[in-house]
Amino acid sequence: MPRVTEQYRAQRRAEIIAAAAKLFAANGFHATSMADIIDEAGLSAGAFYRYFSSKEELIGAVAEKFLDTTDETFEMMLADGAVPSPEDAVATIVRASTTWIGHDVVPGVDMTRIGVQVWAEALRSPELAARTNDVYRRLRGHFAEVARRWQAAGHLSSDAVPEQVGAVLLGLVQGSVLYRLLSTDTGSDTGSYLAGVRALFTAPRT
Amino acid sequence: MPRVTEQYRAQRRAEIIAAAAKLFAANGFHATSMADIIDEAGLSAGAFYRYFSSKEELIGAVAEKFLDTTDETFEMMLADGAVPSPEDAVATIVRASTTWIGHDVVPGVDMTRIGVQVWAEALRSPELAARTNDVYRRLRGHFAEVARRWQAAGHLSSDAVPEQVGAVLLGLVQGSVLYRLLSTDTGSDTGSYLAGVRALFTAPRT
Repeated sequence: MPRVTEQYRAQRRAEIIAAAAKLFAANGFHATSMADIIDEAGLSAGAFYRYFSSKEELIGAVAEKFLDTTDETFEMMLADGAVPSPEDAVATIVRASTTWIGHDVVPGVDMTRIGVQVWAEALRSPELAARTNDVYRRLRGHFAEVARRWQAAGHLSSDAVPEQVGAVLLGLVQGSVLYRLLSTDTGSDTGSYLAGVRALFTAPRT
Repeated sequence: MPRVTEQYRAQRRAEIIAAAAKLFAANGFHATSMADIIDEAGLSAGAFYRYFSSKEELIGAVAEKFLDTTDETFEMMLADGAVPSPEDAVATIVRASTTWIGHDVVPGVDMTRIGVQVWAEALRSPELAARTNDVYRRLRGHFAEVARRWQAAGHLSSDAVPEQVGAVLLGLVQGSVLYRLLSTDTGSDTGSYLAGVRALFTAPRT
């Protein structure tokens, strides 16, 4: 296959993923039909179905794009044997997740809104549940590495289990997403949540 | 109105809420119709609509029942000027949320599954978003009181903001719900998550 065609296909694919992500974030999975996505992508149905055959496949592709960006953020954070504190690691990922809105992943789309919808949908779709478990494991694995290094540096008890601590750090990120999306009270922003994380983690223990 | 009728009405109402909660937890809001709920409650449509007129109203009633139970758990935990540590407070609420499954709220129904669906639905429904913000505020307020007492006892920095710390403690509970529901890996249970919380909060700081 000539190179220009591969590039063309990759670009069409990215455009379709962007169109799907935009509609998923705004309207959810149930209220978004394949016809809506085809319209938004500005393609004929025939051309579209050469790329994706189902909504589930598109959800998976959107998730994969999100994950690739997350992987890169963790890679940068953990480069050169860095030992970020748990609160700094959480802050980096929480800030990145707000930056992802409109930048690195799909311009103009808040990926965290799609994330919340995936959580709900995974409770009903076995296919999405399996995929969500994989995503969960990958994200927790990154945070477990943060915990492992923090432990090796003597900042966590030697009997702490990095995978367990990693799950909690991921939970803090998920909690921040819900705080930003669901609490509309004044001051319910990411900065105040991260200030709370820092206050808790650096508390004077007696 | 004679007393027996009020009791009768309260019982019918509770039965309808239980029927709705069961279907919401299993199938979600979208896939549950009013007809399904009427069937499950074993009432005629005429009788049913004397109690509830819309699915939104039922979602609200289910949420209210959940909140009442949560309020009681916090009240018990904070009785007599108790000063629970943040990790103990999180553990109490996380354990209670797993006990709620099948007991205090609606027998046989995992209320946390409904919670995750409310989060997703609130992103699209302004009515549910307003209600979810109220729920968020109430739960965060309970945890802010935990933080306030912990701070008064000298365990949190004097410039920590209890409402911010409360949001984070609530985030830890939300994270534990997602861990239990979405991670199907071995060891992904509430106990291991709470062990992670404890390891983080009691870490030796240098």
